[in-house]
Amino acid sequence: MNPRDPLGVAVVGTGKMGADHVRRIQDVVNGARVSAVVDVDAERAKRIASGIEGCTAYTDPAAAMAAADVDAVLIASPGPAHEAALLTAFEHDLPVLCEKPLTPDAASALRVMEAEVRLGHRRVQVGFMRRYDAEYMKLKSLLGTGQLGRPLMLHNRHRNAASPPFFTSSMLISDSVAHETDVTRWLLGHEITAVQVLRPRPSASAPDDLQDPQFVVFETDGGAIVDVEMFVNCGFGYQVQAEVVCERGTARIGDGHAMVTNMAGRWGGTIAQDFVERFADAYDRELQTWVDATRRGEVTGPSVWDGYAAAAVCEAGVRALEDGVRVEVELVERPEFYL
Amino acid sequence: MNPRDPLGVAVVGTGKMGADHVRRIQDVVNGARVSAVVDVDAERAKRIASGIEGCTAYTDPAAAMAAADVDAVLIASPGPAHEAALLTAFEHDLPVLCEKPLTPDAASALRVMEAEVRLGHRRVQVGFMRRYDAEYMKLKSLLGTGQLGRPLMLHNRHRNAASPPFFTSSMLISDSVAHETDVTRWLLGHEITAVQVLRPRPSASAPDDLQDPQFVVFETDGGAIVDVEMFVNCGFGYQVQAEVVCERGTARIGDGHAMVTNMAGRWGGTIAQDFVERFADAYDRELQTWVDATRRGEVTGPSVWDGYAAAAVCEAGVRALEDGVRVEVELVERPEFYL
Amino acid sequence: MNPRDPLGVAVVGTGKMGADHVRRIQDVVNGARVSAVVDVDAERAKRIASGIEGCTAYTDPAAAMAAADVDAVLIASPGPAHEAALLTAFEHDLPVLCEKPLTPDAASALRVMEAEVRLGHRRVQVGFMRRYDAEYMKLKSLLGTGQLGRPLMLHNRHRNAASPPFFTSSMLISDSVAHETDVTRWLLGHEITAVQVLRPRPSASAPDDLQDPQFVVFETDGGAIVDVEMFVNCGFGYQVQAEVVCERGTARIGDGHAMVTNMAGRWGGTIAQDFVERFADAYDRELQTWVDATRRGEVTGPSVWDGYAAAAVCEAGVRALEDGVRVEVELVERPEFYL
Amino acid sequence: MNPRDPLGVAVVGTGKMGADHVRRIQDVVNGARVSAVVDVDAERAKRIASGIEGCTAYTDPAAAMAAADVDAVLIASPGPAHEAALLTAFEHDLPVLCEKPLTPDAASALRVMEAEVRLGHRRVQVGFMRRYDAEYMKLKSLLGTGQLGRPLMLHNRHRNAASPPFFTSSMLISDSVAHETDVTRWLLGHEITAVQVLRPRPSASAPDDLQDPQFVVFETDGGAIVDVEMFVNCGFGYQVQAEVVCERGTARIGDGHAMVTNMAGRWGGTIAQDFVERFADAYDRELQTWVDATRRGEVTGPSVWDGYAAAAVCEAGVRALEDGVRVEVELVERPEFYL
Repeated sequence: MNPRDPLGVAVVGTGKMGADHVRRIQDVVNGARVSAVVDVDAERAKRIASGIEGCTAYTDPAAAMAAADVDAVLIASPGPAHEAALLTAFEHDLPVLCEKPLTPDAASALRVMEAEVRLGHRRVQVGFMRRYDAEYMKLKSLLGTGQLGRPLMLHNRHRNAASPPFFTSSMLISDSVAHETDVTRWLLGHEITAVQVLRPRPSASAPDDLQDPQFVVFETDGGAIVDVEMFVNCGFGYQVQAEVVCERGTARIGDGHAMVTNMAGRWGGTIAQDFVERFADAYDRELQTWVDATRRGEVTGPSVWDGYAAAAVCEAGVRALEDGVRVEVELVERPEFYL
Repeated sequence: MNPRDPLGVAVVGTGKMGADHVRRIQDVVNGARVSAVVDVDAERAKRIASGIEGCTAYTDPAAAMAAADVDAVLIASPGPAHEAALLTAFEHDLPVLCEKPLTPDAASALRVMEAEVRLGHRRVQVGFMRRYDAEYMKLKSLLGTGQLGRPLMLHNRHRNAASPPFFTSSMLISDSVAHETDVTRWLLGHEITAVQVLRPRPSASAPDDLQDPQFVVFETDGGAIVDVEMFVNCGFGYQVQAEVVCERGTARIGDGHAMVTNMAGRWGGTIAQDFVERFADAYDRELQTWVDATRRGEVTGPSVWDGYAAAAVCEAGVRALEDGVRVEVELVERPEFYL
Repeated sequence: MNPRDPLGVAVVGTGKMGADHVRRIQDVVNGARVSAVVDVDAERAKRIASGIEGCTAYTDPAAAMAAADVDAVLIASPGPAHEAALLTAFEHDLPVLCEKPLTPDAASALRVMEAEVRLGHRRVQVGFMRRYDAEYMKLKSLLGTGQLGRPLMLHNRHRNAASPPFFTSSMLISDSVAHETDVTRWLLGHEITAVQVLRPRPSASAPDDLQDPQFVVFETDGGAIVDVEMFVNCGFGYQVQAEVVCERGTARIGDGHAMVTNMAGRWGGTIAQDFVERFADAYDRELQTWVDATRRGEVTGPSVWDGYAAAAVCEAGVRALEDGVRVEVELVERPEFYL
Repeated sequence: MNPRDPLGVAVVGTGKMGADHVRRIQDVVNGARVSAVVDVDAERAKRIASGIEGCTAYTDPAAAMAAADVDAVLIASPGPAHEAALLTAFEHDLPVLCEKPLTPDAASALRVMEAEVRLGHRRVQVGFMRRYDAEYMKLKSLLGTGQLGRPLMLHNRHRNAASPPFFTSSMLISDSVAHETDVTRWLLGHEITAVQVLRPRPSASAPDDLQDPQFVVFETDGGAIVDVEMFVNCGFGYQVQAEVVCERGTARIGDGHAMVTNMAGRWGGTIAQDFVERFADAYDRELQTWVDATRRGEVTGPSVWDGYAAAAVCEAGVRALEDGVRVEVELVERPEFYL
């Protein structure tokens, strides 16, 4: 492609997330356009494509990736479909932004990793969008200055107003705490070595057989202790907070106190109601960063290694939840390729 | 009196404020007891005295002040009765804690001042209790360090949930902004030289003929500009805030964010509902400080000069409100006695 | 233009602000490109144009506006040059985003207004970017719900760390408070009817002959009282805050408490150091909104009437500052065209 | 004693804590006086007694408790001396305020409990003063309303600027987390059933062989999970925070944001430097409450059972720290006497 032309992106999967990325590429992001949409539901793909000039609908990701006007791929299909789509993208040597999870388990993530290593250069950015949230970025940047000394502990709160009906106890780990696995690894620069899941008596507001909330404790190879309060039926809103405790100080994000009102005997403000509201800017920045890097011929952001490590930690976490014990995380040796 | 004995206090006036001071002396403050209560309502005085060992009821302040077991006087009667009570206390050379206002107008305050000067030593502490509030004390102390440089502006908010039925437009100045006149003079160490009162369109929540809110602007002899939002029917609670703007920084008190909740889509906390709740500790500290100083034979705290200056500013303020113009404040020369 | 093609924008004036808008159009905003840059400094224009594909350098705005690939104009030249550039844009019937001030005085703003009315349709959006700041937008939206009742007062703080060397006392009004004139009019939906400027003793941190800070009071035709603390050498950072006081509650923005640290005996966070940091997102959103509306053939945002009203209030404000009196604001009757 | 006379208190132990209580009784608290001070250091006891009218110095607690003018006992001697002093007080049937810990281990606490049960009525209030802190009281009161639903989790932070030289790793549990054991039991109304202590890599700011910080996790019989960050060399101050997570909301105390400054590029405030500053009011209120209840012939506040339970949990905690495992807490059956 001519580096001055907009990046032609094939969006694979046009569910809620994929459709939102289509909108983002067309209306928000600079320097890209949707040149292909792929969905097993042919009607759905056609309907979306028809509203976009120069956009073709496909049902087969491989066909889309073979098209001349496709320069890059955004994978937003369900997790189990990711591995195949990634391997196809590798065949075409196309840059990929792959929504989290990279794949649903560590074994498949490992196969993707081996394939990318064989390809010989990084092609994949994994969609851990919290790395692009302004507050997390400030926190990371403050830690980087060394002013606070070495991090010793990280306290996380991850609260949803209510869980969708299909949510299971293990999905609190694999879908939700998954974000904190990446936050922990990225903020601290440590690998997670062990996981425990403590189980408070479930909230009366949670569905009958859901273990909600859960209190998760990570240990890291840098000697930090990390806790995550994971509560998907807290009732009052969507709230993500993090406090890093270092040798000489602490830093906290997520209070979200932009506007303060006095009203009816109370001071305070509103709480975001979902991740779309809370992380809208992070998604925009993630995609813009990916487009800019891709047009420069670079790959930045969370790597396949990060996706693999998250999958391995979540697997250990689900076992810790089910067996009620501390579970050690076993990672393969990190390929030099990802250092 | 033997300095180790508790201070015998005559409480003059046993309305809401006086009765609360009786309770405070008996149950909270160390080193004092109520030895006399005075009220024109003889039954009321007797009822209160009967619950306190060694306490006598009076209807005449002069009789109480002549009693052997009265070492000091707390005046909590209505403002118009203050002058006579103060002059009587001077005759008996008794230390006085006089609730604000010292007297209802500058002329009578001036007469009290002249009498105290004639007496030759300070006897009166005026009840501007904000000087004893922990937050105002912190603010004063920070200004005293000089870290922020010279004060240039002072922004005040003074909000009540709802005004009592007898409240008039001029009472917003003479009863309520009266506190900010003292706060301004004490925090900044300046005298107030001019007053303006701006009149927003009255709130629909205010009684029909009440000019509420009012926005008051003071100029001071130290070159500071001070504004006061005075709003007695704000609906949501009792809230007193102050921000001093200095050459190198600002400091703000009054947010009152002790406990933060997340609930029903909102984060935040409760707002005090009246001054009793907001300033309970300040009243306790004021009275304890007065008792301690009195037992040491000292007079500290706001002086008759402070009471006079407040009265003069409020008089000017009421004229500024009524005439809609800037009014200069005329003070007599400050007696050396009060320097 | 084909509505699917990117909007070709001529950027007139390539100083600090103009150059930043060039970057924004090229790298951030979706759906636009810089097709022309205009600067009296031909070398400067050429240097910028040479880095952008399909961009031509001009020294004469009229020449740029006549070019076939120019669909819209962004005026970022010094204020005195705006009138001529706007009138030229009207000749070519081009949509314009004009940086504030619309023009340096009310008389010239009026001429622009008359020209646009003659043109028969709105062409100009004035660059009051605070309307695009997320916090101000939240505040506006809350007021719109009516939950708080009618607005009675608006308290503003506008602080800069330090003023540039060329800054004069009247520029605190015409350059800085100019923003609050628009904020007042937009948030409250009132016109400003009178201005006073109170002058605290200048800060020792301010240059010798600069009246800094200033305390400005507006009255509005809706009966609100508005105060603005304007302090351009506050030393500690760039801080913009606003609190609206309504009949049933208040709302405040601008605390900016995203990240809280505990460090060295203090809790708290950092303060933005300039408007670029504080309002970066607002500029992005302003430009994206303009591009989107323009491509749809619409004109939204602050109008020439808003630019004129701001100019008239600032003129009155400068007189109020110089003469030390309350000055009434005289506006021409609002043309139906701008209702 | 005549209920109108001040309570004559014997203060046993006149170290830092005991001397402060002497001052509090003499200068702050209403209705009590120090009639005896006891210290093994006879000179020290005499020096303190000589400054107080009607106060006798003793070296033997039993002699003091036998004195006619001693109505109640405040035990502030080192923990190992508490058991003997308590048993002696029981012989004289005197009301006791006993500083925490009740005794240094569960076995001795149990003996005290059995003795009080034999005595047949409650005599002891244990000095868990956080129950008298205004913020904790608000939190307890909010939980009591049931608005937030049942408590599921409790997050605690307990930070000291620096630890004294004699501090050992197990004292982080037995001296410091001891407070959170009581807070947990009192706030939630649950008993603690198991303890884990996780050990982050020690801070470089901590002394060489001190395991600091520690991350403690409690399980309770009400199904709650409680975590405590215990960090005694955090460097920046003394900070105690608690957040209760309930079924329908959360509540947090301890931010301590009374005064907010803008200064040198930062907004924020100061952090208390020790527990004396942070909990001064709680100590005053604790003592006043004890004096008032004692004069009414009542015993309120934390009981010997509470002291015993705290000792048992801390013992389990120390084992959990040393062995690196989860330790279950074994309590004797709660005597009906303490229900």
